[in-house]
Amino acid sequence: MTVIKAAIVGYGNIGRAVLEAVRAAEDFELVGLVRRSASREGLPPELEGVEIVTDICDLSQKPQVAILCTPTRAVPQYASDYLAMGINTVDSYDIHTGIWDLCQQLDPVAKENGAVSVISCGWDPGSDSVVRTLMQAIAPKGITYTNFGPGMSMGHTVAVKAIDGVENALSMTIPTGTGIHRRMVYVQLCPGADFETVKQAVLQDDYFVHDETHVQQVDDVEALIDTGHGVNLVRKGVSGTTHNQLLEFNMHINNPALTAQVLVCAARASFKRQPGCYTLIDIPVVDLLPGDRSQWIPKLV
Amino acid sequence: MTVIKAAIVGYGNIGRAVLEAVRAAEDFELVGLVRRSASREGLPPELEGVEIVTDICDLSQKPQVAILCTPTRAVPQYASDYLAMGINTVDSYDIHTGIWDLCQQLDPVAKENGAVSVISCGWDPGSDSVVRTLMQAIAPKGITYTNFGPGMSMGHTVAVKAIDGVENALSMTIPTGTGIHRRMVYVQLCPGADFETVKQAVLQDDYFVHDETHVQQVDDVEALIDTGHGVNLVRKGVSGTTHNQLLEFNMHINNPALTAQVLVCAARASFKRQPGCYTLIDIPVVDLLPGDRSQWIPKLV
Repeated sequence: MTVIKAAIVGYGNIGRAVLEAVRAAEDFELVGLVRRSASREGLPPELEGVEIVTDICDLSQKPQVAILCTPTRAVPQYASDYLAMGINTVDSYDIHTGIWDLCQQLDPVAKENGAVSVISCGWDPGSDSVVRTLMQAIAPKGITYTNFGPGMSMGHTVAVKAIDGVENALSMTIPTGTGIHRRMVYVQLCPGADFETVKQAVLQDDYFVHDETHVQQVDDVEALIDTGHGVNLVRKGVSGTTHNQLLEFNMHINNPALTAQVLVCAARASFKRQPGCYTLIDIPVVDLLPGDRSQWIPKLV
Repeated sequence: MTVIKAAIVGYGNIGRAVLEAVRAAEDFELVGLVRRSASREGLPPELEGVEIVTDICDLSQKPQVAILCTPTRAVPQYASDYLAMGINTVDSYDIHTGIWDLCQQLDPVAKENGAVSVISCGWDPGSDSVVRTLMQAIAPKGITYTNFGPGMSMGHTVAVKAIDGVENALSMTIPTGTGIHRRMVYVQLCPGADFETVKQAVLQDDYFVHDETHVQQVDDVEALIDTGHGVNLVRKGVSGTTHNQLLEFNMHINNPALTAQVLVCAARASFKRQPGCYTLIDIPVVDLLPGDRSQWIPKLV
């Protein structure tokens, strides 16, 4: 089996999970980790033996693909830079409204340098997008609802943390169906802060003003954190002229682990594409798997 | 928008539903129907104005794609013949153990004649295969169960009808989880036939001997028939090194209507492939949709 030489870029929740997923994939070899500091002081034990650099060019072995685990806003720059070096990139860029722009931005860079970029390869956008597209195809008329959670929303949590008097916070997304979500917000206050003032600030924040939001005070936000998440994707639609076709996809998953696995699958698939920029719906699902289609078609079709 | 000229081959349940789906698809034009008899006597009203021939070469306009709605065992011959004429083919060939052989058999014919064949494009095999493959990719270790029904099994129904003393029959597939199915068999007896004898013959038939089977006598099987069907596809698996990733796909659908819609989607996608033979897992899901990816990526990814 050909081995794919991969570098991980960034080492937060997703980077750590990608390390596990790359090591669990027999067709991958980790050539190193790119992060802001190359210091080995206080490194977690799982990074023993992993080459760490601040510039991807400094790695002893050139990676064939860079798995971007940076904050989402840093993705366009990293992807563009690495593609220009002829290195394939995959990311889980999750700003839905910016995906097509990013695709068009990276496509010429990838083509000019004989590289492939697969963008927005988490679970939403990502694997959910594949299911949404399939549902749209097989019941072309109708409505799809994507119901997220229960699970932590990073964006909403950050918004609460920015409010004066908040020491720590957690915003959970609770699906109430038809794409409508309840926000359960848990705040840990700074000494002397007034809960009612904080609560009103949350309720009036742009992130929360349109949703049913409940704010509760807790002593210790850390004690509430788990990385489980979920989705319920439903479509009721029409195939041909036949109505009431009912389609549903559900997941209850560890969020970073699933994102990381999708990234590794996309990294693998990138080597079966012509140069350019793709999303997950542009890629045959069989290419996400190791080995050859001849081994999978008899098992999965 | 470019219009795809399609012919329908065969006019049973699936052929009729494909006629509806082709007419509902703005990017398709029906150039005719191929069936055993071209007689227009006693034709159903929906076929008014449709050219009907017994040989595809007799159609006034040459089709670009033939949508095969024949019995599954006739698919290999029709596909091979039409591919040799440079006509793309799609089918819902559903003998799971024969799919890879069929793919290998049609691939060289398609390539030699600059045509594309997409095989086994119903819902299982078909759209379910796409979901199974995606689940395998995003949770590479674990077990997937495909639970069918409740819905009519054609194969099992035909097996019961072949038993002496059976006037008409229906075998329903009932999912009991973990890929195990109950068979609910409804028999309408010929005059003078003995129910207990028929029941024992069903229970000892190869189709039923390994499953929990219940046989009931009814006065009128036709009064029980509906074309609804369903699936519950579940996988519990491991992403990276994280266990207990729970994935599920459910459908409750009209069976011929969904099969027909998937066939039309595959016919469309066939024009975006290089010559050769493919299954649905070999095709990017975005290609199942009309128009260009630039219109779908912003909506669906």
